[in-house]
Amino acid sequence: MKNPTLQLMVHGKNIADLTPEIRYPGVTIRQVHRSDNRNYLFIDLHIGSNAKAGELQILFKQSNNSKRILATQTFNLQQRRTGSAQRQGFSNRDAIYLIVPDRFANGDPRNDSVNGYSDKLARDIPGGRHGGDIAGIAAHLEYIAGLGFTMLWPTPMLENAQPINSYHGYAATDFYQIDPRFGSNQSYRELVALARKKNIGMVQDVVLNHIGSNHWWMKDLPSKDWLNSDGKYTETNHIRSTIQDTHAAKSDLNQFADGWFVKTMPDLNQRNPFLANYLIQNAVWWIEYADLAGLRVDTYSYSNKEFLARWSARIMQEYPNMTIVGEEWSMNPNVVAYWQRGNENRDGYRSAMPSMMDFPVYQALHTSLVGDAIKPADMMTMYETIANDFIYPHPEQLTIFEGNHDTPRIFSALNEDLALNKLAMVMLATLRGIPQMFYGAEILMTSPKQRDDGKVRGDFPGGWSDDEVNAFIGTNLTPAQSEMQTFTRRLFNWRKQQSALHGGKLLHFIPQDNCYVYFRFDGRQKIMIVINRNEKEVALQTERFREIIQDAQSANNILLDQTIQLEPIMRVQGKSALILELFSLPPMNVRGQ
Amino acid sequence: MKNPTLQLMVHGKNIADLTPEIRYPGVTIRQVHRSDNRNYLFIDLHIGSNAKAGELQILFKQSNNSKRILATQTFNLQQRRTGSAQRQGFSNRDAIYLIVPDRFANGDPRNDSVNGYSDKLARDIPGGRHGGDIAGIAAHLEYIAGLGFTMLWPTPMLENAQPINSYHGYAATDFYQIDPRFGSNQSYRELVALARKKNIGMVQDVVLNHIGSNHWWMKDLPSKDWLNSDGKYTETNHIRSTIQDTHAAKSDLNQFADGWFVKTMPDLNQRNPFLANYLIQNAVWWIEYADLAGLRVDTYSYSNKEFLARWSARIMQEYPNMTIVGEEWSMNPNVVAYWQRGNENRDGYRSAMPSMMDFPVYQALHTSLVGDAIKPADMMTMYETIANDFIYPHPEQLTIFEGNHDTPRIFSALNEDLALNKLAMVMLATLRGIPQMFYGAEILMTSPKQRDDGKVRGDFPGGWSDDEVNAFIGTNLTPAQSEMQTFTRRLFNWRKQQSALHGGKLLHFIPQDNCYVYFRFDGRQKIMIVINRNEKEVALQTERFREIIQDAQSANNILLDQTIQLEPIMRVQGKSALILELFSLPPMNVRGQ
Repeated sequence: MKNPTLQLMVHGKNIADLTPEIRYPGVTIRQVHRSDNRNYLFIDLHIGSNAKAGELQILFKQSNNSKRILATQTFNLQQRRTGSAQRQGFSNRDAIYLIVPDRFANGDPRNDSVNGYSDKLARDIPGGRHGGDIAGIAAHLEYIAGLGFTMLWPTPMLENAQPINSYHGYAATDFYQIDPRFGSNQSYRELVALARKKNIGMVQDVVLNHIGSNHWWMKDLPSKDWLNSDGKYTETNHIRSTIQDTHAAKSDLNQFADGWFVKTMPDLNQRNPFLANYLIQNAVWWIEYADLAGLRVDTYSYSNKEFLARWSARIMQEYPNMTIVGEEWSMNPNVVAYWQRGNENRDGYRSAMPSMMDFPVYQALHTSLVGDAIKPADMMTMYETIANDFIYPHPEQLTIFEGNHDTPRIFSALNEDLALNKLAMVMLATLRGIPQMFYGAEILMTSPKQRDDGKVRGDFPGGWSDDEVNAFIGTNLTPAQSEMQTFTRRLFNWRKQQSALHGGKLLHFIPQDNCYVYFRFDGRQKIMIVINRNEKEVALQTERFREIIQDAQSANNILLDQTIQLEPIMRVQGKSALILELFSLPPMNVRGQ
Repeated sequence: MKNPTLQLMVHGKNIADLTPEIRYPGVTIRQVHRSDNRNYLFIDLHIGSNAKAGELQILFKQSNNSKRILATQTFNLQQRRTGSAQRQGFSNRDAIYLIVPDRFANGDPRNDSVNGYSDKLARDIPGGRHGGDIAGIAAHLEYIAGLGFTMLWPTPMLENAQPINSYHGYAATDFYQIDPRFGSNQSYRELVALARKKNIGMVQDVVLNHIGSNHWWMKDLPSKDWLNSDGKYTETNHIRSTIQDTHAAKSDLNQFADGWFVKTMPDLNQRNPFLANYLIQNAVWWIEYADLAGLRVDTYSYSNKEFLARWSARIMQEYPNMTIVGEEWSMNPNVVAYWQRGNENRDGYRSAMPSMMDFPVYQALHTSLVGDAIKPADMMTMYETIANDFIYPHPEQLTIFEGNHDTPRIFSALNEDLALNKLAMVMLATLRGIPQMFYGAEILMTSPKQRDDGKVRGDFPGGWSDDEVNAFIGTNLTPAQSEMQTFTRRLFNWRKQQSALHGGKLLHFIPQDNCYVYFRFDGRQKIMIVINRNEKEVALQTERFREIIQDAQSANNILLDQTIQLEPIMRVQGKSALILELFSLPPMNVRGQ
C-alpha cells in the first residue's frame, strides 16, 4: 500500500490497561493510543515492504517489561492481489445497474430469516425483508450483462441487525460483515469474482455518515465523542448549502452536519481521528477483500467535510484509477460541483471525488419530459441543464441516472407513458456522463409518485420461485414490458461499442418545437440524437446542423437498425427519438476541438 | 490618460484620398487607416504629456509632400479635470435611483417637440414622448437626495432621432450628442455638476450592442463589416448561456451574439477594431466631459465577448476606482458570475466588470414574497439565492434591485400589498450588494403584471405642471403612497450612515415559519434584520442567534425609532420587518471573521 500504516481497534474489558506486543517480521508497533474508554486500544502498525502474509499474534501484557501474557489476539495479514492498486473504476464506457439486494432475487430461501436477527421474512410488508440475497444476484448476473450493463451497484449488504426496516442496509451494525440474510463475506467475494468473469464490476455502497442504532459500538462507544450531537438524537436540517454558503450561521451548519438522519441511525463524528482511520481502512479493506471496481458514497455531504476530503484522497491515493461517486442530493449544480475533484473552490476546499451523482440532470430528465406544476414539458429544461456544464470540472465524469431507490419509479413519474420512457432511456444512454439505471426500469416497474421507499423497491418479477411473471426469461411480461426490455437491451448493448459515447464530446442545439438535437462525436464517429418531445411530428431542417453533420450523406438509424439517407428535411414522429450514426466523415473542424 | 493614443474617425466624401497633417506641440499622427469605404479616415494620434489644451487643426492634403490644403477640421483638446483618473464609482455606500428621463419631470416645455425630430410630444401614447427632460431632473435633485439616494442612473439620453419609440433612448443616432428633447451636452454636464453638489453621482447608461436605425452611420457605413449579420436583420435567440456553454453549437452562439434585438436597432460588430476604439473612446469621453461616477451597460452579453473584456479593461485601467455595472438578464447566477471581475472562468475568459445586475436576487425578491405558480411565498427562496453567493468573486459588489424600466412595477408584482412592498424595500436596503430602486417605487406606482414598457415607465406625478398629484412635495398622495414614501425616505437615509451595510459581512439563518433572519455586521456595529413573510405573528427564540447576538441586551428598532430590550422571545407581527441595531457589543468571534 502507498500508506504502510494500519491502525487496529482492539476492544476488550479494560484492554487500555495492557500493553500490546507484536513479534512478526516486517511488522512493528509504531504507537499505541488510548481513548476515554478503557475498553479500547488503538494500535498503529507499520507494515514493512518485506512483511509476508501470515497470521500475526498480538500479545497483551501488563507493561513492556512484563513477561506474562495476559491476552492474545490474532490478525491475518493477507497477500495483496496483483495489480490491485491499478484497478480500473467505472467510466463513461460503463453503464451501472442499481439493485436493492433484498428485492432483486431470492437465490437461497434458507437465509430468509436467520436466528439471532429479529427482522424476519415478511414479504407482505413494504418495509419488511423480502428474502433477496447474494445467491439471487449471482444467479442473474447473466441477465444484467445481457441487458448491456457492465457495473453492478447493490445497496449496502453489511450487517443491519436492526429490529425493523433492516432490508435497505443503510443502518450498519458491523462494518466488516455481510448480513447473513444476504450471505457471507465469502459469498460476496465469490459474487464479485463471478461478476468480473461476466465483465461486470462491483460498486459497493458505502455509508460514512451514520450507523444502525444496534451497531455493537452502541453498547460501549469507543470514545465519548464517537457520535455527533453528544450521542443524542437531533435531526439534521438537510440544508446542504450550509457547507458552501459563506453567510451560513454556524449553528445551522453544525445542525446540518452533526444532526442525525433518523433516531435509528446515530450520526458518526468523523472528527475523531480513530473513527476517521477506521472508515478509511474499512473501505480499503473491502476494495482489497472483495476486489471492488468502485464505491458509491451515501449521504455524502452530511459527513464532516475535512474528513471527506481526507477519506476520498486516501482512497484515490491507493487506487488512482478507481472511481468513487458521491450522493449529493441537491438540484443546485454549484453544490454538486463543489464536491468534484478538480473544482477550485474559493474557500480552498479540495475534494478527491472523481464522480458525483448528477441530480440536476435527473431532475431535468423528468421535468423536460412531463413538466411540473409551473410549466409543461419542455426540452429547454434539459438543454439549460446541460448548458450549465461549464461550472463542473469534469461534467463527463458525473453519474447520470433516471432514478434510484429513493425516487419514484421513472415509468410512474412519466405518467406510465411508454414513449416518454424510451426518450428518457435514450437520453440516459447518450448524454454525457456515466449512466445508471435502477433495476426494473427496463420492465416498467411502477411506484407511487410520492416518495414511498418500500414500494419503489419492489420485488423484481422472477426473483422468487413462485413468481408468475419472470422478467429474467421474459415469461408473462406485458407487451409493453417486453418492448421496453428489448429496447433497453438493444440500447445499452449498442452503447458498449460507441467510442463517441465513451470519450467523445457533446454538441447541442437550442431546442426548437420542443425537439432537442445533440451530437456525440470523437475522431472516429459522429452520433446524432434527436429527442422529439413534441406530441406531433417535427420536420428538422438538416442544414441547421451542418457545422457538425458536414458532408455526411447517410446514417445508421440505430433504434430501427436501418440505413437511411440524410435528407434536407428529417421527419421525426411525435414523442420519439432518433439515434443516427452518421457516415462518410470528412476531417472534422468543429467548435471546441 | 494611461493610454496616450486617440483614434479620430473622419467622415467626408472621398476623404480617404487625402492625407492628414497636424502641427500642434505634443500631438503627432502615428498612423492613418482607411477602410473599405473611401468616405472614412481613421487617424491615430499620440497625445504627448506635454500637449496643452487648445484647438487643434487637422489639415488634409493630396499627399504628404503637397503644400495645398484641400480641407481642414478642428478638434478641441481639453484640459483634464484634476483627479479625474481617481474618481470614485458607486459602491455599497450608495443607493441608486433609476429614472426614465422622458417620464420623470418636464422642466422645459420648450423642448417637448423639436424641429427636425419627427417623434413629437404625445403624452397620451404609452410609447410616445412625454416631455421629461434634463431641466426636470435638475429641478428635482433635492427630492432624490432627500429620499436618501446618492446615485442617479437615467436611461440613455443620447440623441435618438427615431421616428417612433424614441423616448427610451436605447436607439442612439449620435454617440456624442444629448437628445435636444432632453437638453444639450452642456445642460447634461451642468446637471452632473449640480447633482454632485447634492452628493449624487451620475451613472450613464451605455449601449454597446446596437444603434438606432437612423444613426448617421446607416446612411454611409464606415465599413462593410460595421454591423452584424451582414447588416441585415436577423433576430437574436436571446439564449445567453451559449456564451458559457462548452457544448453550444457555433450557429446558436453566432445567432445569439450577432442577431439583432429588433429591426430598428442594427447590431454593432465590435470585432471591427475601429468601431471597438470608437466605443471605448466614447465612454471615456463622456466620463471626462460630463464627470460621471459610473456606467451601466445595457444588454451586456449581447456584444462580442472579447470586445467586452477589452472595453471593460480599458475603462477600468483609466479609472481604477470607478464602477461599471452590466445588465445580464439571466436568472442563472453562473451566467451572471461569468462576467464579474475576478471570476476565474475555466475557458480563460477574464472580465474587468466590477459589478453586474443581480437578476437572481431580483427574482428571489419577488418569488419569496408572493411565490409563483408552483409554490407559495417562501423566504427559503431568498435564503437559497443568497446562499449561492459562494459562486461569485464579489457578491457584495453586485447591484441588487427591486425592478427597472423593463420589469413590472414591484407594487403590482406584489399584488399591491403595502406590507410586502415594505419587506421588499427593507431587503433591498439591507442585503449585500449595491441597492438600486426604480423611480416611483417609493410612491407605489403601478403597471400591468406582464411586460408593458410604456406603462411601466409611467409619468412621475408632479413632474408636469398641470399634475394634480405632486409626489415631489407630497400633494394629493394617497395615505398608502405617503406612508411608503416616508418609509423609503427613512430607510435609505438611515442606510447612508450604516457601516455594517457599507462594508460589513452578512450572516443568515435558515428561515423558519417563513421568517428570514439575517445580520449585517462589521467591527463597529451589528444590525439584525427580520423579514417575517408569515401572515401571522412569529415568536423568534433569541437564543438561536446567540453566535452573533452574543451578549447584546438591547437594540434600536430602526423602523419604529424605539429602543427595545432583547427578550428571549421576540414577537414579530405578520408580514412585517424588524431592523434592530444591537447594543453593548463585546469583541466578536463569529464564523468567517
